[in-house]
Amino acid sequence: MRISFLAIGNELIQGKIGEANGRFLAQELELLALEMRFMLLAGDNPEEMISAFRFLEEQSEIIVCSGGLGPTPDDLTTEVFAKFAELKLILDQKILDQIKARFKIRGIEMPLTNKKQALIPESAKVIPNLFGTAPGFELEHNHRFWFFLPGVPNEFKQMTKDSIIPRILEIKKIKKATKSKTLRIYGITESGIADRLSVLKFDPKLRLAFLPEFPEIYLRLSAITDEEEEAEKIVNQTSQMIKKELGEYVLSEEGEPLELVVGRLLKERGLTLSTAESCTGGWLAKRITDIASSSEYFLGGFVSYSNEMKIRELGVSEETIKNFGAVSSETAKEMAIGVRNNTGADIAIAITGIAGPSGGTKDKPIGTVHIALLDEKGFWEQRFQFLPLSREMVRNLATETGLEVMRRRILGLRMPGEKKDEQK
Amino acid sequence: MRISFLAIGNELIQGKIGEANGRFLAQELELLALEMRFMLLAGDNPEEMISAFRFLEEQSEIIVCSGGLGPTPDDLTTEVFAKFAELKLILDQKILDQIKARFKIRGIEMPLTNKKQALIPESAKVIPNLFGTAPGFELEHNHRFWFFLPGVPNEFKQMTKDSIIPRILEIKKIKKATKSKTLRIYGITESGIADRLSVLKFDPKLRLAFLPEFPEIYLRLSAITDEEEEAEKIVNQTSQMIKKELGEYVLSEEGEPLELVVGRLLKERGLTLSTAESCTGGWLAKRITDIASSSEYFLGGFVSYSNEMKIRELGVSEETIKNFGAVSSETAKEMAIGVRNNTGADIAIAITGIAGPSGGTKDKPIGTVHIALLDEKGFWEQRFQFLPLSREMVRNLATETGLEVMRRRILGLRMPGEKKDEQK
Repeated sequence: MRISFLAIGNELIQGKIGEANGRFLAQELELLALEMRFMLLAGDNPEEMISAFRFLEEQSEIIVCSGGLGPTPDDLTTEVFAKFAELKLILDQKILDQIKARFKIRGIEMPLTNKKQALIPESAKVIPNLFGTAPGFELEHNHRFWFFLPGVPNEFKQMTKDSIIPRILEIKKIKKATKSKTLRIYGITESGIADRLSVLKFDPKLRLAFLPEFPEIYLRLSAITDEEEEAEKIVNQTSQMIKKELGEYVLSEEGEPLELVVGRLLKERGLTLSTAESCTGGWLAKRITDIASSSEYFLGGFVSYSNEMKIRELGVSEETIKNFGAVSSETAKEMAIGVRNNTGADIAIAITGIAGPSGGTKDKPIGTVHIALLDEKGFWEQRFQFLPLSREMVRNLATETGLEVMRRRILGLRMPGEKKDEQK
Repeated sequence: MRISFLAIGNELIQGKIGEANGRFLAQELELLALEMRFMLLAGDNPEEMISAFRFLEEQSEIIVCSGGLGPTPDDLTTEVFAKFAELKLILDQKILDQIKARFKIRGIEMPLTNKKQALIPESAKVIPNLFGTAPGFELEHNHRFWFFLPGVPNEFKQMTKDSIIPRILEIKKIKKATKSKTLRIYGITESGIADRLSVLKFDPKLRLAFLPEFPEIYLRLSAITDEEEEAEKIVNQTSQMIKKELGEYVLSEEGEPLELVVGRLLKERGLTLSTAESCTGGWLAKRITDIASSSEYFLGGFVSYSNEMKIRELGVSEETIKNFGAVSSETAKEMAIGVRNNTGADIAIAITGIAGPSGGTKDKPIGTVHIALLDEKGFWEQRFQFLPLSREMVRNLATETGLEVMRRRILGLRMPGEKKDEQK
């Protein structure tokens, strides 16, 4: 059964935004061993849209379309498809009521333009959208199954998971069991991982995919079998094998973000945390507090962006900054002392560095970052030199590394800069 | 002249990596007023590749292909295209020598598999590749111009800039001008914008696109004409018309992020800023410090996540928290006072709220956020009720609103909660 994807929007074809829904659908299909045939992007242009519909109709049995269902004049998908398929558009009163209700909750009268979103081709079935005004719809035409979803990524994703994938399985009349697991990995390159895994023997039903997600690498294991139990067994056993081989580099086994892993470690041990950030400017605290229950262990943080704030709020000595600079081992350590004293947290972490694009020197080029950690065992401190990268990438890496050194410290793993034989 | 893009690779069609070369090419074309027609992704499958070649040949005069030029058995682009176009493959000795030389520099013998990369269709012209072993090639077939480039992003980008774009301009022999502008808009829905704009009469050469980028909406204006001056005039005039209609909701006119707009306003007025965040957990400080020169006006921030930190570091009174709660107008105000006293900043902003998923009550449901701003003019404070949304969306909206109230305060615009007639 051939499945293709079509994304419609001038913003895509003009390179204004990147298309990500197709990749999401492809990943979901891949988990079920269903193959994507073509992914096509077209602009908001009726003639081009019809050419695209015709090509995909020739080439596929199932076509999932994304975008062009909004209320504005450039949202043409429904109208043009109805023309292509020679179907009438009808006003769906239920959809209209739902759209009106959504606006009512927000205390707004529905703008007239939104009425258009209640028009769907005759014979189409509505696909509910819990997160936006535009519902999707599905229809069969010329023995092809067409699905139309809004292009807004969180709406597309939710509707794909809830409605499209189950429908595709139904259409295919195949009962398959799939299990997957995503290992998040940090601190080793993709080829480094591949090298280490080359010695392992995997079950033939196991599928392995590398997904680079800067600054981490996701390793996705999936197994498709007739029985759910078997799939689960294969994935779990493989995960164990890989963890044994990659050890300390595996951040999490279920796709969990590092801030959740660190949060859980803190909670389990009853430890509290506070942060002092300079170059990351609050990004570390932001990631920590992305986790809903972070108030149980995160006391708070200082974004000591100016030297005055480092001195006044964290008690970094003027002498230290004068002699060693704001980006130095000494300043990082004093920041960590300051935030630990101020908050009484069990673990204090401090980050100071040069994110760029200016401010680099010969001794301290852009990408120089000092991270200091202070806990009851004492200090740990390290200078990192991230490669010449964008400001955003330096800040991202510094934040990730901040979380990672906490994870390693709490678990008693080898810390960055320590040799292998120093590992406890 | 119709230009299309084709990316070939199983890793793309399986969702393992995102396709970004097409977007890069689209952006380069857009800058030159050249329009991309289709962007198509296909797997390493000869039958599918031929269907893709045929479709794009029908639909385009210029086709740029990415990927499948490597040395491995699944790199089939050259071979399959030669079959499609009924061309012989010939061994290009010069390419072979170059590949051998590249390996020699690295002290490695060229693996036999790489020899394949020196095979190109007869009549093809080589496109040099400075960064990798696989060169590209160009040929004319059936009155279409075909370009083949490696899929490795930095190689694709360099070769597109150095070779493809100049060749396309040469082939087109047309001088066209384009101008575009992106207005960033916040505080009004997409359909609200469409309604307001429906009364305006735009130049027929103007193209308008809505790009929802939660929590903002981007409105992209572009005009393509024969003369650059005319395009610029159309875009500027339209931008003025829209700004007049949407007024205060337009954050920026050149696609600039709100944190940059606020930063510039602060810098122009010589004002300094500090932040006190609870529910946003550092996200506001993070966005402010995304801007490279933010150290000129941002003194620092407090992530006073715990009540203890609100009390100890910001001087919020225990009574206030006890009587009104940590999420209250009173606490927000005292946080603002505290951070302004501590840092001496001209403007202090404080955010406290309930991001969820737990912690909501009947009086203060999830999405309740208090924002207080204190400057030399005194206090501004407002309670916001963001709709039941994810934790991330509540935090995102609270952060955006924090920046937005600063922009409005500095510009003397109507503040949220103020009636229209209170506007100064």
